[in-house]
Amino acid sequence: MKVFIVHAHPEPQSFNGALTRHAQQVLQAEGHEVQVSDLYAMGWNPVSGRGNFTTVANADVYKQQAEEAHALAHHGFAPDIQAEMDKVSACDALIFQFPLWWFSMPAILKGWVDRVLASGFAYGGGRWHDRGVFRGKRAMLSLTTGGGETYFSAEGLSGDIMMQLYPINYGVLRFCGFDVLPPHISFAAARVSPEQRAGYLESYAQRLRTLATTPPLVYPSLEEFDETFRRRVAG
Amino acid sequence: MKVFIVHAHPEPQSFNGALTRHAQQVLQAEGHEVQVSDLYAMGWNPVSGRGNFTTVANADVYKQQAEEAHALAHHGFAPDIQAEMDKVSACDALIFQFPLWWFSMPAILKGWVDRVLASGFAYGGGRWHDRGVFRGKRAMLSLTTGGGETYFSAEGLSGDIMMQLYPINYGVLRFCGFDVLPPHISFAAARVSPEQRAGYLESYAQRLRTLATTPPLVYPSLEEFDETFRRRVAG
Repeated sequence: MKVFIVHAHPEPQSFNGALTRHAQQVLQAEGHEVQVSDLYAMGWNPVSGRGNFTTVANADVYKQQAEEAHALAHHGFAPDIQAEMDKVSACDALIFQFPLWWFSMPAILKGWVDRVLASGFAYGGGRWHDRGVFRGKRAMLSLTTGGGETYFSAEGLSGDIMMQLYPINYGVLRFCGFDVLPPHISFAAARVSPEQRAGYLESYAQRLRTLATTPPLVYPSLEEFDETFRRRVAG
Repeated sequence: MKVFIVHAHPEPQSFNGALTRHAQQVLQAEGHEVQVSDLYAMGWNPVSGRGNFTTVANADVYKQQAEEAHALAHHGFAPDIQAEMDKVSACDALIFQFPLWWFSMPAILKGWVDRVLASGFAYGGGRWHDRGVFRGKRAMLSLTTGGGETYFSAEGLSGDIMMQLYPINYGVLRFCGFDVLPPHISFAAARVSPEQRAGYLESYAQRLRTLATTPPLVYPSLEEFDETFRRRVAG
């Protein structure tokens, strides 16, 4: 498999850094090919706008999806975006490695999503969800949290962390057709014992070794919805 | 009231732009003071890291919350962040105006949250939720969507949009103690008729005129949770 890790943490010595280095070793030992985009190290620009393009469809009013359609037809995506698109297209599995900041991705990673997963490239023309562009590819979140596991449980103050991750798992990854695997979560990574952190590295390694076989999360099929995207009434 | 609008859209002629200009007019006509941070126009940097600070607590390893605590004690927040902090502190109501991109905020706005709502300034030391730093202040999302209302309904393909907005409403705003008002949502803003868009401007104006009196969303109290942040068992 070709595995593409998009890594978003400002400090290489962080536990996020350790997880990505460990992932590279484990995956390569299994014979997989690994590509890493270290967004902070790359100086990735997360601000979506005219800088996404070398072409201009309409110089007076900026409409992003129209510019994306134009760029797609005229090879007009900026080189930083095209390079990431090529990595997504080439991979069999995509991993986002990040610390959960404000119940979501760090802005630098959100801006990778905003800019790279352009209309026409990652979705569009009826290609989404189980008819998505990236169907057949797998995706997985690997994240660290500040809070502990009870805090992020269904009975916890945060509410179930799967609810916090829903906009990413379903709204981003499944939207584009990925088979989304359950996330690997290193709870309270900065506060647990060195033994627990070693345990996180080992449980993550196990998840990476089973990347091709882990059953994905189950999401509805487009078949279940009518032309207004409302669930069809049974019978 | 002092109302602070954080505005995140790359195109001033967009409907987001129209909503913010309308909000300024409506609020000023009601006698309120309005402050707008137009993040694209400001060239806001959304990448959280050492650039958040003029001070350095640890030059070897970057730990954001430690740097934030140090900066708080030594007036070490970067000028762009300090200016936004001052606007948040001064306001009675905070509004985020944005297009829903990938079921969340545009990266430039996420990076405002990541950088401005620093530990020690916006939360910390037991100050969160109903004991939060900004308790007594109100907050509201005003957003536009690509998809229509049925798509974002509980029976729609997206699932209830309140679920998609939960990480922002609860994970960001309520976390910091704001009373969070129901969002104003301009569904399918680019595709509806001019009459419908005029209707959105008017319904938004109505929401702004009742900013001080609209009942906030109901969230649990910290009292309901034990010391591990798990919900206490009744009785």
